[in-house]
Amino acid sequence: MERVEIAHTDHYERVMKALTGGGLLLAANDATGRPNAMTIGWGAIGSIWSMPVWIVLVRPSRYTYQCIEHGDCFTVNVPASGMDQALAICGSRSGRDGDKLADSNLTAAPAVEVPAPTFKECPLVYECVVVHRNDVQPAALIPEIANGPYANGDYHRLYYGRILATRAAANAADLL
Amino acid sequence: MERVEIAHTDHYERVMKALTGGGLLLAANDATGRPNAMTIGWGAIGSIWSMPVWIVLVRPSRYTYQCIEHGDCFTVNVPASGMDQALAICGSRSGRDGDKLADSNLTAAPAVEVPAPTFKECPLVYECVVVHRNDVQPAALIPEIANGPYANGDYHRLYYGRILATRAAANAADLL
Repeated sequence: MERVEIAHTDHYERVMKALTGGGLLLAANDATGRPNAMTIGWGAIGSIWSMPVWIVLVRPSRYTYQCIEHGDCFTVNVPASGMDQALAICGSRSGRDGDKLADSNLTAAPAVEVPAPTFKECPLVYECVVVHRNDVQPAALIPEIANGPYANGDYHRLYYGRILATRAAANAADLL
Repeated sequence: MERVEIAHTDHYERVMKALTGGGLLLAANDATGRPNAMTIGWGAIGSIWSMPVWIVLVRPSRYTYQCIEHGDCFTVNVPASGMDQALAICGSRSGRDGDKLADSNLTAAPAVEVPAPTFKECPLVYECVVVHRNDVQPAALIPEIANGPYANGDYHRLYYGRILATRAAANAADLL
């Protein structure tokens, strides 16, 4: 899919709807250069340290955690409507176990600004380099969160990715 | 200014333009119940832990830090265009020193969902309760940030505020 540079604030409502709906694809290469992706349903976009940033959360148990720790960059790929099966596979299977991208019918292609993969099927992609990371602090969570998503520990690391490029298909608004 | 409930994703582009332009007003009551505000130029909006969140950054040296630590809630107030003087005053003077809100011509009024002030002059207000907080980690910053905004230390605390209400004037789009 041909993409052109847009502002990182464009399409925000659609992106948030996708994030909290079926999810987005957080992608990074592993240490051998093999593309990997996981489905994310949480994150934030803003401007911090005078830089546009995507904040993504990854549990240390995830293969994506190893990938981002290794490469210090990632992409956030917004799927087209109808890509539910890819989101389901990338949200439930680990990249450690077989080629889940092929099973998801996702076609990896290099990003423009960072050594991380993007997926040709996704109409909107953010390319990010990690400029900071910190961790969820167990003692500073309200009980609803501590006893909900962290009932079994595995506290997220938060990655603050400076958005170096936001690229979208010309008809992204129709596809998202 | 009369405000009605809107979606937290509404007006995102305008809000980000204001954030990175003149700034927004981060407000909280101090321990005595007196309203306080500081101008912020950094932050992010998203959905984390299945909750809409505003992430704001406050240095421990700020009076606002004491206020949020005390009350565990805050509001983010988006100014109307033309409120540059209020933003300049609230960005340069501490609430410890005199009544900067009066000097800023800001009229505090109670928020609906949280015990924090909002300002009648602001067309768009987010009301947030703190659900998590963590700190910038000095060792995990890229040099550009470590030697820039943190050249003198005073590393920010990040407050994750669950957005309980987003309220805007009917003609907010014209005023922002």
